[in-house]
Amino acid sequence: MIDLWFSENYTDDVRLSIKVEPLWSEQTKFQRIDFFKNPTFGTFFTLDGLIMVTEKDEFIYHEMICHPAFAINPGIQRVLIIGGGDGGTAREVARYPTVQQIDQVEIDERVVRLCQQYLPQTASVFANEPRLQLHFVDGVEFIKNAPDGSYDLILVDSTDPIGPGEGLFTLEFYRHCHRALTANGILVNQHESPYYPREAQEMKRAHQKIKATFPIARVYQFFMPTYPSGHWLFGFAAKTLDPVTDFKPERWQQFNLKTRYYNPGVHTAAFALPTYVQEMLTEDA
Amino acid sequence: MIDLWFSENYTDDVRLSIKVEPLWSEQTKFQRIDFFKNPTFGTFFTLDGLIMVTEKDEFIYHEMICHPAFAINPGIQRVLIIGGGDGGTAREVARYPTVQQIDQVEIDERVVRLCQQYLPQTASVFANEPRLQLHFVDGVEFIKNAPDGSYDLILVDSTDPIGPGEGLFTLEFYRHCHRALTANGILVNQHESPYYPREAQEMKRAHQKIKATFPIARVYQFFMPTYPSGHWLFGFAAKTLDPVTDFKPERWQQFNLKTRYYNPGVHTAAFALPTYVQEMLTEDA
Repeated sequence: MIDLWFSENYTDDVRLSIKVEPLWSEQTKFQRIDFFKNPTFGTFFTLDGLIMVTEKDEFIYHEMICHPAFAINPGIQRVLIIGGGDGGTAREVARYPTVQQIDQVEIDERVVRLCQQYLPQTASVFANEPRLQLHFVDGVEFIKNAPDGSYDLILVDSTDPIGPGEGLFTLEFYRHCHRALTANGILVNQHESPYYPREAQEMKRAHQKIKATFPIARVYQFFMPTYPSGHWLFGFAAKTLDPVTDFKPERWQQFNLKTRYYNPGVHTAAFALPTYVQEMLTEDA
Repeated sequence: MIDLWFSENYTDDVRLSIKVEPLWSEQTKFQRIDFFKNPTFGTFFTLDGLIMVTEKDEFIYHEMICHPAFAINPGIQRVLIIGGGDGGTAREVARYPTVQQIDQVEIDERVVRLCQQYLPQTASVFANEPRLQLHFVDGVEFIKNAPDGSYDLILVDSTDPIGPGEGLFTLEFYRHCHRALTANGILVNQHESPYYPREAQEMKRAHQKIKATFPIARVYQFFMPTYPSGHWLFGFAAKTLDPVTDFKPERWQQFNLKTRYYNPGVHTAAFALPTYVQEMLTEDA
């Protein structure tokens, strides 16, 4: 077999390399998509050369983007997912019987179609979930047209703020999210990482804008080994609900969901940031 | 300049690669030691090809091996450090004015001497700390000869259980630690990682042995980007003290130490393990 290695550059002088069997490569109107297979990670795919989802650890990311919000507001009925074309986020949201409507906005239909072919572990939700409606449009345009107060939860499962994900890290986008959310609405967004300079800079920028838009703006962390540094963050923003004091562990446990990463202890712990991360979040970007 | 890359293999098919300027390489009686320089990490060194300490993130490891124990028992006076030849663990311990005696046992004197030359950020403690006594002997032999109840805290800052660190992961070693500890004694040890198979296996093995030796045996986690997966663990074992219920945040804050990673929120959070890690720790190794 050919000795082929995929590398993701974390900085100009640090990179993670993975021995791969290539499954598919394609340049769409929006981005370069590559699917690979590897003994350690199983099938995984990259967008513009950055690892998005691996079979081995996608459960960590997808549980952590979804379950904290439901443990804070167990009454969530209408959910908007922006990005997340692999389906993992939708899969976790769809586990809640209380959810009535899932709108998913993915700019690049090819991500969905290729994940349906190569990553059924996450993408099978698209064929099986009657509450879910897919919209292949730009999330920035979609949110502009969303009626006021139309969602209880918005999950921004985006790429980095370079390329097609860029508009999802703007003040205007966050303001429209605020407007489209109900009074108890929650926005969770992919929030980069505090460790390597590129992601740390984007983390600070995103946080400043969200803080300027929502009265409650927190950041929570999780161990995500296939993302740069393994220390990854989601933003939690809300109009009224606090992620720690309004956390309802007993109520969440009544959903009786089997999870592999998330649990009530992890919930509160995720919001306890190291001192250096707290300090960076208060710095000017 | 030469285009030279150091790689640490996480599995046969996954590796982290770092562009380096080599500073020093040496084969001692015990292990291969290499010092490198890199723009992202500053100076760092490897033992038998595994990254031990980088200037950029050593504070995370060294704060997390040391401060939780002092926040649980602020009366710690006598400390034994096994391994940790770079000096970072001793540096953090030495910040407590209540500490009267620090015995440090490092099997390989060359690690200490080279760190004094290339890594003063951690190793300067060895020249400046009158309470610290260095012993260049095998930790396994040292602990056998330690009198009963002679230490309030033992910190095992070891390499992996392959090579010179192997004896520090045995039942016999843990039993001698138990015997050498005071009634309120605490053992903290390098406990590997739950993610890649090699470290996960060693994590399970170590935990089983410590559980068989100490009435209180817990595991806590921290984000350590230069170790495989970035999800790293310490073991916390004690005769009487529980790391969460006996945690004294106000008392610890009276020490008035400036830290960059550790804080009282991080303390409790570190013991909240993801479900898959909890499950692995109960499995047979």
